[in-house]
Amino acid sequence: MPSSDIDVIRARLAAHPRPADLAARRARIDGLGAGYLLPPDVVVESVDAHGVPAEWTHTPAARGGRVVLFLHGGGYVSGSLTSHRHMVAQAGREAGARTLALDYRLAPEHRFPAALEDALAGYRFLLDAGIAPARIALAGESAGGGLALAAALSLREAGLPLPGCLWLSSPWTDLALTGASLETKAVVDPLLSRAYLSELASLYLNGADARGALVSPIYADLTGLPPMLIQVGSAETLLDDSVRLAAGAGAADVSVHLEIWPHMIHAWHLFYQEVADGRRSLAAAGAFIGAHLDGA
Amino acid sequence: MPSSDIDVIRARLAAHPRPADLAARRARIDGLGAGYLLPPDVVVESVDAHGVPAEWTHTPAARGGRVVLFLHGGGYVSGSLTSHRHMVAQAGREAGARTLALDYRLAPEHRFPAALEDALAGYRFLLDAGIAPARIALAGESAGGGLALAAALSLREAGLPLPGCLWLSSPWTDLALTGASLETKAVVDPLLSRAYLSELASLYLNGADARGALVSPIYADLTGLPPMLIQVGSAETLLDDSVRLAAGAGAADVSVHLEIWPHMIHAWHLFYQEVADGRRSLAAAGAFIGAHLDGA
Repeated sequence: MPSSDIDVIRARLAAHPRPADLAARRARIDGLGAGYLLPPDVVVESVDAHGVPAEWTHTPAARGGRVVLFLHGGGYVSGSLTSHRHMVAQAGREAGARTLALDYRLAPEHRFPAALEDALAGYRFLLDAGIAPARIALAGESAGGGLALAAALSLREAGLPLPGCLWLSSPWTDLALTGASLETKAVVDPLLSRAYLSELASLYLNGADARGALVSPIYADLTGLPPMLIQVGSAETLLDDSVRLAAGAGAADVSVHLEIWPHMIHAWHLFYQEVADGRRSLAAAGAFIGAHLDGA
Repeated sequence: MPSSDIDVIRARLAAHPRPADLAARRARIDGLGAGYLLPPDVVVESVDAHGVPAEWTHTPAARGGRVVLFLHGGGYVSGSLTSHRHMVAQAGREAGARTLALDYRLAPEHRFPAALEDALAGYRFLLDAGIAPARIALAGESAGGGLALAAALSLREAGLPLPGCLWLSSPWTDLALTGASLETKAVVDPLLSRAYLSELASLYLNGADARGALVSPIYADLTGLPPMLIQVGSAETLLDDSVRLAAGAGAADVSVHLEIWPHMIHAWHLFYQEVADGRRSLAAAGAFIGAHLDGA
């Protein structure tokens, strides 16, 4: 018997296992998002972000010209505006910000660095729209979290202005798959096995080094990155991806907030309408973003 | 030239190096605390906490019967009510709580487990005074942080009710001194070298195993501990003591908040009247405690 709200989600995931076929996988994650109600006060607006399909969301809470630039999860091969719209809108509400979500190109049709190029195009789109970097939170979940870090590192290398803060939920930061939690948490993680992650990494990498800074930021020098909030569940094979990111960033004098949420599963924010700690996590992210961006 | 508020503190520490003599060391840290103004609205009251000399502080912000039980730092051989009074009072103000600080017994006159016995006596004193565990934050700095963890583990083993949360600033969690930051941060840490920590460990351990759970909690099974906030500076040789504590607690399904504060030095909260990030750290700790204790 499910004993808590996250166990209800576990039971549902177990009853609908991930399909082997890529198109079916994509449809599954999109269906997950489409199955959630979008609150009636969320205004959604499609936009071309320097060539990248994207969309704005606004809620009445948005103020001060703040923007959360969001990169969805899905292992670089799935996920979309549809799969994450409900969660992104809620994050924006909690942050008092508009959101701009990017429909970045996916592997295997488009491999590294296509997704990174799109993330950077989306950021430049915001700058060119006159939005001050200090009013932008660069955010991502899972693969999107790794992508957000890769984008921040690319901006730093290019000498471009960095966003005001980073928000990374369940980030995938090590495509070389060296974290001990890949084994220690395998039995409690209902979504991500080493075998599956290995397949995703192969599809994305396109022959690139799995330890390259722009695909696996835990191997990068993280000096100079903006304050970052990292949120991860304790029931994730990727737990160590977050812990090692926090360690590396902190050692490099980056302001780090790491939150480890007991018993939460990978990307649990997506289930916030049913899971209380999903709501609490989004509220914590919103408070962090609110405290770290200009624009009251 | 000092370039920031923490550099002013660094310059002062460099101008007044730690004496070799233990009595002089104790006088130095007490003088540090005594040199700070205690705001006039802080009420201090001495109390015998089941045999342990202790003191309450109250500010007008205290409400709801909440208490921060505080264990000072000083490497188990120094530190006192005097050295930390100003900072503890400010933490209580930010938390909306009274504070009870313990003048626990120090090594080498009183070795392990004397300090732990005193910490547990102080906690039982609160319970016997009718204060609900869910209204108690168990807190400590440096050695006091390790001591707070040891006390929580002892309570768990004894089947006693645990406090509502833990607040650990710059905690010393590994008396075996195995953290890589002991080397990587040696050049930027003005206070704690491996040689000094090794001396402190010897004085406290009294022959006990340096990897024992009640002196070095990173080697313990941390399952069942209450939510914990860990705050550490990036310029500390003990940085890895915090990172590894966060990793171990999170892996054991404890709710963990780890904050790494760029360029802050060991126990920087003590300098909060001069250092802005000291004030911000205390405010963050107060907000965490406020959110995790019963009693509005």
